[in-house]
Amino acid sequence: VPQLVENVAGVPKKVKKIGKDDPRRIFHSLKVGLALTLVSIFYYLRPLYDGFGVNAMWAVLTVVVVFEYTVGATLSKGLNRIFATMLAGALAVGAHQLASFSGERGEPIILGAFVFLIAAASTFARFFPGIKARYDYGVVIFILTFSLVAVSGYRVDELIKLAHQRLSTIILGSCTCLFISVCVCPVWAGEDLQKLIGNNIEKIAMFLEGFGEEYLKKEEGESADVVKKDRSFLEAYKSILNSKTSEESLANFARWEPGHGRFRFRHPWHQYLKIGALARQCACSVDALNVCTSSKTQVPVEFRQRIQEACRKMSSETGKALADLSLAVRTMKKPMAAATHILGANTAAADLKTALKTTSSDMIALLEILPAATSASLLIEIVGHTEKLMVA
Amino acid sequence: VPQLVENVAGVPKKVKKIGKDDPRRIFHSLKVGLALTLVSIFYYLRPLYDGFGVNAMWAVLTVVVVFEYTVGATLSKGLNRIFATMLAGALAVGAHQLASFSGERGEPIILGAFVFLIAAASTFARFFPGIKARYDYGVVIFILTFSLVAVSGYRVDELIKLAHQRLSTIILGSCTCLFISVCVCPVWAGEDLQKLIGNNIEKIAMFLEGFGEEYLKKEEGESADVVKKDRSFLEAYKSILNSKTSEESLANFARWEPGHGRFRFRHPWHQYLKIGALARQCACSVDALNVCTSSKTQVPVEFRQRIQEACRKMSSETGKALADLSLAVRTMKKPMAAATHILGANTAAADLKTALKTTSSDMIALLEILPAATSASLLIEIVGHTEKLMVA
Repeated sequence: VPQLVENVAGVPKKVKKIGKDDPRRIFHSLKVGLALTLVSIFYYLRPLYDGFGVNAMWAVLTVVVVFEYTVGATLSKGLNRIFATMLAGALAVGAHQLASFSGERGEPIILGAFVFLIAAASTFARFFPGIKARYDYGVVIFILTFSLVAVSGYRVDELIKLAHQRLSTIILGSCTCLFISVCVCPVWAGEDLQKLIGNNIEKIAMFLEGFGEEYLKKEEGESADVVKKDRSFLEAYKSILNSKTSEESLANFARWEPGHGRFRFRHPWHQYLKIGALARQCACSVDALNVCTSSKTQVPVEFRQRIQEACRKMSSETGKALADLSLAVRTMKKPMAAATHILGANTAAADLKTALKTTSSDMIALLEILPAATSASLLIEIVGHTEKLMVA
Repeated sequence: VPQLVENVAGVPKKVKKIGKDDPRRIFHSLKVGLALTLVSIFYYLRPLYDGFGVNAMWAVLTVVVVFEYTVGATLSKGLNRIFATMLAGALAVGAHQLASFSGERGEPIILGAFVFLIAAASTFARFFPGIKARYDYGVVIFILTFSLVAVSGYRVDELIKLAHQRLSTIILGSCTCLFISVCVCPVWAGEDLQKLIGNNIEKIAMFLEGFGEEYLKKEEGESADVVKKDRSFLEAYKSILNSKTSEESLANFARWEPGHGRFRFRHPWHQYLKIGALARQCACSVDALNVCTSSKTQVPVEFRQRIQEACRKMSSETGKALADLSLAVRTMKKPMAAATHILGANTAAADLKTALKTTSSDMIALLEILPAATSASLLIEIVGHTEKLMVA
């Protein structure tokens, strides 16, 4: 019981935290409430009730199920629902017509067979990766509507009127959702995607810049102190490693969104995915670098001093280049200073290589050079992609 | 048009491939068809129709929406749906009772306010990570049922009878789903999770073993040939890097599953997640290793020969140890030979270190030693976790 009390007492704190992390969540909750209330009002009004009948509740159902956090997701679900209902309704009416030729006794058997076939085939279609990504919800609604219409068609004879009513209520519900989701504080999946990718690149940049500083300072003997302070940005990049799923779903929803703000319709969202994948690869190298340096022990001091400066420069130059790129992604302008910084990083890398050739080489140096060199080459690719983005 | 024809012609091939990859998908499709047909039959029978009325279509709806690929997911959705409907129904009846005190004009306003409040609060609750993971679907159904009952309660006066009917049809639909999903070729999320983790560890093991072989052979001058042949297992580990989401959802569903086969109820599924995370970390090191060695250029030959043997041994010993561990995860037995192999790998690592101290060191050697050492230490942890698993 005391644990339960503690949990309940912790709820306001949690609510505050979630609201603070992203205030749009509060707006989203209010928007859902608003949409539902609007649809309910439709239902309360007598004339509409007479027009739609029990089907009016389908509008309520549609609002609850279709309203999603981002505009793209709402639009995708709404359109999926409308078109799937239309298609399935037409097919079901056809199936019903066909079954009615076979008399009183054969009808349920034929309809049952149709339901079985359509359900099995559609469920199998959901395993296709392409359908899964974009039309998963539509296929579910397709199965649902087909079986409902096929089954209820056996009872209610006014099939076409019913289908018409269902469709109009669903369109009503979807339009309410879309209207509110676009007009009241819209949350665009495309914008979120851009922000996510920009942030990811910035995290790597912060790591590399901070890493360069830390590496230098450690020499001056204040290691433990610095390490503690730096933990937050040294760990930040780890979230990038697992961001693939959210990037993909955002890009998926972004594809459905109409032009808004600085984005036109058919903005090349897949370019963002490519940049995201490169950033993830970068983060993986950074991870390896982090593991390497945290386990350093047997390094001769005089050697360390020799390579130190080059390493520091490489790291911070790459960091600056990445920071510039992240800015470029966010503002959708050409990166200005990135090319210079990359050049600087490459020069430092070359310096380091000569330094290594002239001396006996060393663990850290080598582990350092590689991820940085990788980053540099990745950066060049990223620049290429960003330039493509500018063109598009 | 020619592209469309090509796409359509490619469908049978795709179907074959998906079916071959996992034949359970075909069974799943047939199971969904079967469940739907069963529920439809209930609907066709007159006596049941008289009992349930239009609500019988809720059973159909439940089957379509609740039936998921794994038993755990079906169970979780079914239970979520039943309990959310119950709770929301009770609350809505209460709200309706409360609103009825305020007369003809006040009632819709009060009900509207209730719907707005409940919908906004519940939507916000969906942002809580804990609720999102386990009860997301339940909350959606809660909002849905509450607003439907509250709204329709204004029209239909037999509220409690309606709620009772809704609940019984939903239970009927859920039970049909569960029955078919458990009895006909069940797909257990727990088993899939175990397999996924076992496979992931095996992929890393294959990479390391193959890497050791390849490393040796390259010296003998048949590099290009071998590289081509080895591509498949050299790339296999990459899928591990992005497996976090699927692991988590499987573990989530597995938690709902009753005991089956070699698993008891409340099997420590979170241990699998820990092992999975360690495997992912391992894969990240392997990735760094792979990048490093594929860019090797300026390595003096005589040095390479010196470290080669130790590297090969380290790599293949670690690979063997991992293979043993993956077997242990799958069979749920204690790993037998893993400890010996790890010992071997550690000895090889120590050899390599001394070799490095006596000679001028070199890029590859160092890049090699680190991931392998990391793997070794990770392995020790994995062994610890697996032992815990055995106990639990």
